[in-house]
Amino acid sequence: MDALQTHVHAHVVQFLDELSRLVRQPSVAASGEGIGECAALVAEIFRTAGATLTVFTRDGAAPLVVAEFPGAGQRTLLFYNHYDVQPPDPLGEWTTPPFQPTVRDGKLFGRGVSDNKGNLISRLSAVRTLQAVHGGLPCRVKFIIEGEEEIGSVHFEEYIADHAAALAGDACIWESGSRDTKERLVLVAGVKGDCYLDLHLETATMDLHSSIGAIVDGAATQLIWALASLKDPTTGLIRVPGFYDRVRAPTAREREELRRLPFEEEEYKELHGVKRFIGGKTGEAAKHDYFYMPTCTVSGFISGYTGPGSKTVLPRRAAAKVDFRMVPDQDPQEIATLVGQHFAAQGFGDIAITLLGGERAYRSNLDDPFIHLVAHVAAEATRREALVYPTSAGTGPMYPLGTTLRVPIVSLGDGYWGSRAHAPNEHIRLADFEETVYLMARIMQEFGRQP
Amino acid sequence: MDALQTHVHAHVVQFLDELSRLVRQPSVAASGEGIGECAALVAEIFRTAGATLTVFTRDGAAPLVVAEFPGAGQRTLLFYNHYDVQPPDPLGEWTTPPFQPTVRDGKLFGRGVSDNKGNLISRLSAVRTLQAVHGGLPCRVKFIIEGEEEIGSVHFEEYIADHAAALAGDACIWESGSRDTKERLVLVAGVKGDCYLDLHLETATMDLHSSIGAIVDGAATQLIWALASLKDPTTGLIRVPGFYDRVRAPTAREREELRRLPFEEEEYKELHGVKRFIGGKTGEAAKHDYFYMPTCTVSGFISGYTGPGSKTVLPRRAAAKVDFRMVPDQDPQEIATLVGQHFAAQGFGDIAITLLGGERAYRSNLDDPFIHLVAHVAAEATRREALVYPTSAGTGPMYPLGTTLRVPIVSLGDGYWGSRAHAPNEHIRLADFEETVYLMARIMQEFGRQP
Repeated sequence: MDALQTHVHAHVVQFLDELSRLVRQPSVAASGEGIGECAALVAEIFRTAGATLTVFTRDGAAPLVVAEFPGAGQRTLLFYNHYDVQPPDPLGEWTTPPFQPTVRDGKLFGRGVSDNKGNLISRLSAVRTLQAVHGGLPCRVKFIIEGEEEIGSVHFEEYIADHAAALAGDACIWESGSRDTKERLVLVAGVKGDCYLDLHLETATMDLHSSIGAIVDGAATQLIWALASLKDPTTGLIRVPGFYDRVRAPTAREREELRRLPFEEEEYKELHGVKRFIGGKTGEAAKHDYFYMPTCTVSGFISGYTGPGSKTVLPRRAAAKVDFRMVPDQDPQEIATLVGQHFAAQGFGDIAITLLGGERAYRSNLDDPFIHLVAHVAAEATRREALVYPTSAGTGPMYPLGTTLRVPIVSLGDGYWGSRAHAPNEHIRLADFEETVYLMARIMQEFGRQP
Repeated sequence: MDALQTHVHAHVVQFLDELSRLVRQPSVAASGEGIGECAALVAEIFRTAGATLTVFTRDGAAPLVVAEFPGAGQRTLLFYNHYDVQPPDPLGEWTTPPFQPTVRDGKLFGRGVSDNKGNLISRLSAVRTLQAVHGGLPCRVKFIIEGEEEIGSVHFEEYIADHAAALAGDACIWESGSRDTKERLVLVAGVKGDCYLDLHLETATMDLHSSIGAIVDGAATQLIWALASLKDPTTGLIRVPGFYDRVRAPTAREREELRRLPFEEEEYKELHGVKRFIGGKTGEAAKHDYFYMPTCTVSGFISGYTGPGSKTVLPRRAAAKVDFRMVPDQDPQEIATLVGQHFAAQGFGDIAITLLGGERAYRSNLDDPFIHLVAHVAAEATRREALVYPTSAGTGPMYPLGTTLRVPIVSLGDGYWGSRAHAPNEHIRLADFEETVYLMARIMQEFGRQP
């Protein structure tokens, strides 16, 4: 054990206490619950740790917290994180309440313990460790901590455009990261985009008796038809005309990288109780789709009577939420427009469409030295493999950060294959958290040594 | 005004008080709320009115209340009614609470004031009126009052089969009836059947992050595809193979009767905010479908995140309720089986199907003298038209009653075109209630005069 490792191990309970304090503060971006309070708590925690704080605000936006630590040299390492979390529903499926962080079997459970408060605190704990062991940081460090990541970072692009100078840096560690079932570290150098639509249909001025069903279709039936038309049940291909027009095919290099990387399909199926993939795909074909193809998922639907027993009603209203994960160079606003045109062409032009969140996809240059540095430290310090995926299947605001601040971006974090981000019983393994604190400290060291 | 009319008018406030007392007792068959209490209250009300009570019970069934009044002659008039009501949801759309009956603008509002507690009390009030004015009834009268009508009368057939002798009579007035926008009295001599299905699909052991959507379809998406396949969006025809096999075409007489009857399509559209009928049908074609064609309606659907804002989830579970209105000679159990086979053939064999309620359609013989008697009294006493429709578009357990007890059946009741049965702000006009009490008394008189 080196001095950093020793320090982290001796203080990990303290670091976890700080994480628990942050998890106890709800911060649900979807509903707005606790967002302001959580931004204030994050600012207080970083101020107490010695950071210089800047809290940017915009009308109707969650505050953007920027925390800077001085360090050696001229170069600044950016950490991108977020203090907001996913809604905790369905509440009944949590073993312990989502906002009461609880340790069981060497794991810490709670909404946000992984995504993303755990990652945020692991990085702050690395800063504290370097300060304690070496009396200061080997590089300048800047945390960029937003509060709307889980609703599509709706104001992040504007924050970056308006405050590019204040947010500038030389390289960026992205919000999170995982370990696969073989304990290999999983890093990503890109993200998919997202287009999240709220759909609402009203077909009458009142709920009707279902005896009228021979001559009137209810809102549920009509919205079901509209949604069913979005995607082919057999191939999984999206049937919205123009949807694939802007899709940029992965480069030969990106395809080759992906071919060399593992894809734990059987483990995934077993862990999640999934029987088969779309179109019965397996192996390279499933891996390709997972990383390089866009998606169309109904994330929510409600209409009519959903209580116990029966109610013979023909519902006047139906509402749905649809999530499209996009690839370069698809544009969320354009996708929303295409979906509207498609609905109208199918006879469902009455459906009101609201774009709740839109983000573009992004892929870093895989040859950037910073990406190699992070992967090298991760592998060397853990003596395990570190896999750099050209893109995540998930989303985040890499596009505005990467294109405006012009920095290489790669992720590394405290999660593992079973962390259940976005689901009930989200958790991290305490050992992963400790390892991540150490890795972050080592990355700062190596970054400080680079010219 | 004759003596009966005078008495009804003088006592209508008292009759409405009795109705309000009954409405205040919730009795939601779908959830079971208040069913036992309501059965007891109905029994108490009838016992106080001098009836001989028999309360039949079965395991897991709502009690069947039978109330008999002695009268002149050997013939018994049956009244079929029910004391259960539809769920009051959506609660937010009621101007006053559903179980707090309230008079506004000459109307009484509350869940069940029309369907069916208002009809029940109007008939009891007619009995009280005849007793008060004439000192007794002109015929024997038997009320058959069940508590599961709104969930498909799931045990009614068994009750009738087991207690046919106790329930026997010579003719039956059905539960309800309406007035159209031209104030014509609307009677029906038949009903459609019903097959109400609960569908449940589980596609994974946990809610998944929607980033997996390129290779995994969630439960919402799959159930949407399955439901969309049930009916053709353009023609409205049901696409379940075998669905129409047992449909008995209406007789020439039934078609001719319907052609002579009005169909208030424009009034319906305007009142309910409906823009067009399925397939753009109007006039005779729409009227034919409404009365003589089966339906397929999604009455409820829930899956995933339905709160404010966005949650990027791929839901593990989806559930729906589907209501089929059937015509003679379709069989609900068979329809449920056909739907399951259709789902399996479409690749959706994992959907669990529960038949929540099933009833067969029924049509009385339009030439029966009792049907003419009721229509004649209604027209003569009100000096307005009385229209006898061969069937309702709605459902009720006429089939077991008509086939086992072998009685002619026709409806007449206290509703009107705007009563909003099954919807928020259900109500009756006080004048209609008063008129119906009088009509029921007159029908008993005429029935007593027949040989």
